[in-house]
Amino acid sequence: MSTQTETESGKGYAAAADILADLGTSQGEREELYKWFHQHPELSLAENETSQRIVDTLSGYGLSPKRVGDTGVVAVIANGEGPVVAMRADIDALPVREASGKDYASTATAKDASGESVPVAHACGHDVHIVSLLGACQAMAAHTDAWSGTFVAVFQPAEETAEGADALVAAGIADEIPTPDVYFGQHVLSFLPGGHVGTQVGPSFSTSERIRVTVHGHGTHGAMAYLGVDPVVLASSIVMRLQTIVSREIDSAQQASVTVGALRAGSRANIIADSAELLIDTRAYSTDVQKQIREAIERIVRAECAASNSPKEPEFEYYEHYPITDNDADATGRVHAAFDAYFGDESGELGRVPASEDFSIVPDSMGVPYTYWGLGGFADTSRAVGNHDPAFAPDLWPTLDRGAEAIVVAACAWLA
Amino acid sequence: MSTQTETESGKGYAAAADILADLGTSQGEREELYKWFHQHPELSLAENETSQRIVDTLSGYGLSPKRVGDTGVVAVIANGEGPVVAMRADIDALPVREASGKDYASTATAKDASGESVPVAHACGHDVHIVSLLGACQAMAAHTDAWSGTFVAVFQPAEETAEGADALVAAGIADEIPTPDVYFGQHVLSFLPGGHVGTQVGPSFSTSERIRVTVHGHGTHGAMAYLGVDPVVLASSIVMRLQTIVSREIDSAQQASVTVGALRAGSRANIIADSAELLIDTRAYSTDVQKQIREAIERIVRAECAASNSPKEPEFEYYEHYPITDNDADATGRVHAAFDAYFGDESGELGRVPASEDFSIVPDSMGVPYTYWGLGGFADTSRAVGNHDPAFAPDLWPTLDRGAEAIVVAACAWLA
Amino acid sequence: MSTQTETESGKGYAAAADILADLGTSQGEREELYKWFHQHPELSLAENETSQRIVDTLSGYGLSPKRVGDTGVVAVIANGEGPVVAMRADIDALPVREASGKDYASTATAKDASGESVPVAHACGHDVHIVSLLGACQAMAAHTDAWSGTFVAVFQPAEETAEGADALVAAGIADEIPTPDVYFGQHVLSFLPGGHVGTQVGPSFSTSERIRVTVHGHGTHGAMAYLGVDPVVLASSIVMRLQTIVSREIDSAQQASVTVGALRAGSRANIIADSAELLIDTRAYSTDVQKQIREAIERIVRAECAASNSPKEPEFEYYEHYPITDNDADATGRVHAAFDAYFGDESGELGRVPASEDFSIVPDSMGVPYTYWGLGGFADTSRAVGNHDPAFAPDLWPTLDRGAEAIVVAACAWLA
Amino acid sequence: MSTQTETESGKGYAAAADILADLGTSQGEREELYKWFHQHPELSLAENETSQRIVDTLSGYGLSPKRVGDTGVVAVIANGEGPVVAMRADIDALPVREASGKDYASTATAKDASGESVPVAHACGHDVHIVSLLGACQAMAAHTDAWSGTFVAVFQPAEETAEGADALVAAGIADEIPTPDVYFGQHVLSFLPGGHVGTQVGPSFSTSERIRVTVHGHGTHGAMAYLGVDPVVLASSIVMRLQTIVSREIDSAQQASVTVGALRAGSRANIIADSAELLIDTRAYSTDVQKQIREAIERIVRAECAASNSPKEPEFEYYEHYPITDNDADATGRVHAAFDAYFGDESGELGRVPASEDFSIVPDSMGVPYTYWGLGGFADTSRAVGNHDPAFAPDLWPTLDRGAEAIVVAACAWLA
Repeated sequence: MSTQTETESGKGYAAAADILADLGTSQGEREELYKWFHQHPELSLAENETSQRIVDTLSGYGLSPKRVGDTGVVAVIANGEGPVVAMRADIDALPVREASGKDYASTATAKDASGESVPVAHACGHDVHIVSLLGACQAMAAHTDAWSGTFVAVFQPAEETAEGADALVAAGIADEIPTPDVYFGQHVLSFLPGGHVGTQVGPSFSTSERIRVTVHGHGTHGAMAYLGVDPVVLASSIVMRLQTIVSREIDSAQQASVTVGALRAGSRANIIADSAELLIDTRAYSTDVQKQIREAIERIVRAECAASNSPKEPEFEYYEHYPITDNDADATGRVHAAFDAYFGDESGELGRVPASEDFSIVPDSMGVPYTYWGLGGFADTSRAVGNHDPAFAPDLWPTLDRGAEAIVVAACAWLA
Repeated sequence: MSTQTETESGKGYAAAADILADLGTSQGEREELYKWFHQHPELSLAENETSQRIVDTLSGYGLSPKRVGDTGVVAVIANGEGPVVAMRADIDALPVREASGKDYASTATAKDASGESVPVAHACGHDVHIVSLLGACQAMAAHTDAWSGTFVAVFQPAEETAEGADALVAAGIADEIPTPDVYFGQHVLSFLPGGHVGTQVGPSFSTSERIRVTVHGHGTHGAMAYLGVDPVVLASSIVMRLQTIVSREIDSAQQASVTVGALRAGSRANIIADSAELLIDTRAYSTDVQKQIREAIERIVRAECAASNSPKEPEFEYYEHYPITDNDADATGRVHAAFDAYFGDESGELGRVPASEDFSIVPDSMGVPYTYWGLGGFADTSRAVGNHDPAFAPDLWPTLDRGAEAIVVAACAWLA
Repeated sequence: MSTQTETESGKGYAAAADILADLGTSQGEREELYKWFHQHPELSLAENETSQRIVDTLSGYGLSPKRVGDTGVVAVIANGEGPVVAMRADIDALPVREASGKDYASTATAKDASGESVPVAHACGHDVHIVSLLGACQAMAAHTDAWSGTFVAVFQPAEETAEGADALVAAGIADEIPTPDVYFGQHVLSFLPGGHVGTQVGPSFSTSERIRVTVHGHGTHGAMAYLGVDPVVLASSIVMRLQTIVSREIDSAQQASVTVGALRAGSRANIIADSAELLIDTRAYSTDVQKQIREAIERIVRAECAASNSPKEPEFEYYEHYPITDNDADATGRVHAAFDAYFGDESGELGRVPASEDFSIVPDSMGVPYTYWGLGGFADTSRAVGNHDPAFAPDLWPTLDRGAEAIVVAACAWLA
Repeated sequence: MSTQTETESGKGYAAAADILADLGTSQGEREELYKWFHQHPELSLAENETSQRIVDTLSGYGLSPKRVGDTGVVAVIANGEGPVVAMRADIDALPVREASGKDYASTATAKDASGESVPVAHACGHDVHIVSLLGACQAMAAHTDAWSGTFVAVFQPAEETAEGADALVAAGIADEIPTPDVYFGQHVLSFLPGGHVGTQVGPSFSTSERIRVTVHGHGTHGAMAYLGVDPVVLASSIVMRLQTIVSREIDSAQQASVTVGALRAGSRANIIADSAELLIDTRAYSTDVQKQIREAIERIVRAECAASNSPKEPEFEYYEHYPITDNDADATGRVHAAFDAYFGDESGELGRVPASEDFSIVPDSMGVPYTYWGLGGFADTSRAVGNHDPAFAPDLWPTLDRGAEAIVVAACAWLA
């Protein structure tokens, strides 16, 4: 019982080898591109210079990129009969002050939503994603004799705020590109060895749901607690009880997470406040488990309010939501086989990643199978910091090559 | 605004002084009586030899004691016109192995309810109460010229199990004695200085309510908690939450207590059990607070069961109950004034005692005001152990004198 | 054993009656004074107009008031041989928007410490204290034939911030007034019946200690808690555990309170923060209990940090502190007897007040016995709101009379 | 990068097919054997009739079984040149009253360790394991022409108490059998579909560690908690805190479990006890995680004792221990490929099983790779009860066939 469909690896391998034969000649160009993007990071939905540079670069390859929404870009390379393969790269950066020590480190700043100036950096490696996809476009465009079908590049804004994939769908991406047979994505990661690629069948990146819970006490003088209802004790009871969702209620094979990231109540030692606020993040690898967690949180919060004799029902605001990234078994098997054939020991399993993505929203909106793989970014994983860390900055090489190669190899499993 | 009624201290003082003038002559007799009772302790409702010796002793004083129920004894000294004053002494001992080191320490044993042989000792000092009341009877009977009215002695069984006062009422004590104008009690205590007496207006000994709470989980394999409901986690949450009744819900001036004395759940590490049992003791100095605690416990237990998704309603069994001892202000003030006049600096305030008594059941059943005072039993309170401790054994002197004197002085505030 | 020293009530009563005989004639003047102070409330240490009006008024009585520090005022009425009695009134208001509905309600505003404009009101009744003491000064000054000795009025700033008594000591009050034989204070309260006065021997107002506790976690991604240490769980464990100080560790007769008024940790659902901050207020009626609580808090916080594997020692900042108000037994007994004699059923017991005062700092700095009594401010206590409530505004009458009378009656227990 | 070594499936398949060609002819004999074992269940280390029947049956096949220890049995089928393959079946039953409703249900009883009579049943399916291995022995012995090498059957006692594998090692099994090239085990399970086999590379059955934790309070009267240290509150705090090991400290991909199966403290509501006992079971799929859990438990327990001011260090008794079952990747891949080839869609992945085994002790003692697979026992898994349930009784067919077939197919991957 194998989960990996046999693919015509022979043909795909040969096509990819042809397409990638002269990749080395563009290394200087891609390094320059990468450093430019790295030094021009832009916040989510403000990727103006970034998207313009992408458009210019693609045009330089002889392609005809189109805008989708304000800062999304797509490019379609139609090359005769055959399947349609789409590849997505996310392009936004983060409000982080880079501390990588690189000589090309970002010193950029930008206004955030509240108008304040904040430092900005590609602390999640989306610049690697951009340059990898540009490199693949250049190679696919230059070697149309080696493959047939259609290759679509999708440069997506605002992944970090879970707004960009929705924005592409809202802007009508389905009308701008041919419907793909498969939709790819990749992410540079610190825990995979440098240059390695890793695939994963099924749930790979978790759901994430962010909940603002407000619970009500009854304010009073700090020395006369009996005249009120103490919301700090109520909130603390909730926090302790929420631990039991993961420890007792969820099958550990499901790998769920419930985190109270913020707890805020009261402002003075000697005044018992009226309410407390908890910001909760949940993670699950299935919508059933996500629902089970949501119900458990609501049940526990309501019950603890009852235990405290809270004078008012608690409030639940679900304010951010990432879907599951549930890689299609057939598509993933086919990519995995192609990676095994091409990269040998540098192809492996990704495992489940305790992070979330809005990647699946676009293919799900079109009813298209997808797979999302990992790309190792650091030769020495033991010293690599995690994504979003101020010091995050992947090795240039072989990362930029491998990111482009992985796209071409995966595409050729369909387009050879 | 004084809470203490002026009494005719002069007359009372003189009468008490006359009655107690020759108390010293019976010291040898009372010491022998005390040692006999101390060495013949009997468990609650089994005070057979004890009550027989009391009857014999009272008869020896020329009185006509009567049985009330199996082991209760009353003696009425009717001495002409005037008020009726009753004094209660409790007479039962405890299943404790005495470790006082006294040469007259108890080595007695008895069968307990389950038929097992247990050590028995007067670890709560009821032998002091018996001999003090016998001494007072002897003095009152010998000096009828110094007072007028009626003095009633009540020897009550089974205080330790909260059964004895109910038993006296059930056996018809109201028909066996004239209705008192005031009902007294006293207790030898380790925290009052030796020979001191202490009174307290209002709530003095707390209510006590004992509750058996059963909460239901759902048993399962210890490695598969998600298939069940863990009653150990549920019970532990309840225990932590119950702490907030005293810390947050009750006015601290009310001095309440909620103790989970026993928690029992499960029998094997790798099996999640079906239920857990908590034995809870509550203390309060008013029935309002007692009710508030009871409601809070039920609210918290039900809410925590809801938080755990318990499959079945919790069960509450209220299995033991002591009433409040709420000393009448006028009666207490009158006794306090008499004590001040007679004992000077050795008369003081008792304060609230964190213990419970069934003393008030008899006067409450007759609608009679009462007051209950404390009697210091140890010259060196810093080294005295608490009541019920295996090493508990009060100093013989001045304790046995002072116990008798206090009764006579208090009685003379009415009977002079 | 009485705690109340017999006083020469007869002489004191007669003197007070003489001094207060014509008090009614100044009602209009005192009402106008009160409304002026009520409508000119000033924040702590900014009592400029207030202190000037006090100085002017006292001068109008023929007295020679002196400044102590910036806004403190003292007036000494030296009237021949005899004891020295001092009376303190606190004079500052609160940053509260008055909502009493009175036609003389405050509409004042002021700049607070941060330079922002805030509403200001006498929501704690210090204006009653000022006018009562002015009234007493006027009466004492007008009837020097009825008493002998020295009467000292102390108008203290900044009670609300626990800074004013310290400020008087720092400004050398000991050099500005003769050393008193007794130091008095009073507070208008909502739970005593209107016009009633209440005394209390011993601990009457609690200590209050405010502690800022910072505990350290280790920040990480919200989905990867195992890489960090969660400070929200740590802080919540501490809150639950702190409940056991009052519920298990402190003798309930001591009436302690431990409140976590504020808990702040983290800012986003999906980020585990580096630290959490708790603001804790403790109350006790003895320095031993205060010390026991402080040690228990530190012990519990340190232990919970150890349980969480916290990477760094917790920090404790003790940032506000009120001493205990521990009324001298003899002085209080003497005042109580005088009140009983003069006010009859309107004199009673205050009980312990779950609030704190800096009153005792001045007499303690001079080694002088003190007593602090309560003054009922509302005819209908069942509808009265608590001190500091925006709606707080005592009945004008008999409050202003009774406040002045109480001072004169108490003083005459020494000065008659 | 494949984890499954290609095997010579062709040859192994042909050999297994030859060996199993006439398996159907022994169905009646195996059903009778199964029902006999099912109706003669024996407790751990008391498998006397069971082991005798195994010896007799093997002898009937023409083999020469040997005893290892009291109730262990091994049989070696040496068949020329080639690898050595060993297969283990565990043979003990459980103290459970069978409630399967089968007409061949067990009614057996036995004396347990304490001398009491208890019901006994094969509620974990070890009778399936015995008959499967006997069936495989019979087939291997009857068809020696189809394979070459050595086949070793190991009938192990006392798996349920984690004593049997240790007993075989102690009795010198290494001297009684040739050193295997691979060591197999299988278990009939309720969550795999009937007749299916499932393999798992790496950690498959968890470690289990059972810990008895005793924490010390200080006993006192239930109304005077402040005089003691409450062990019920201490134990409850520990239970709540232990939840955070799984919820916060362990990477969820590691799938750990920490269960407090039993909590026992105190016996009476109104007495605070001296100590509490917790029985804890932990599960992990690596010894690193097991160690991490153990350290976290000890850290938390010690810290909570410190938080409670416990007068005495806690005690930790590690009283039961199961090692991890960590299937060798190569051996498992080889068995998996053989199962895929032979059973097609009825071969699959087992996943991690939240249960523990002492199976690995024997191969680990000899430094031999091993793999342990699952065998589906119920056609309708949705209605199947779990192992150890009183109603547990697998379908006879195809279970008994498939259990024998799986052994032969796996063995032929080496012996063909």
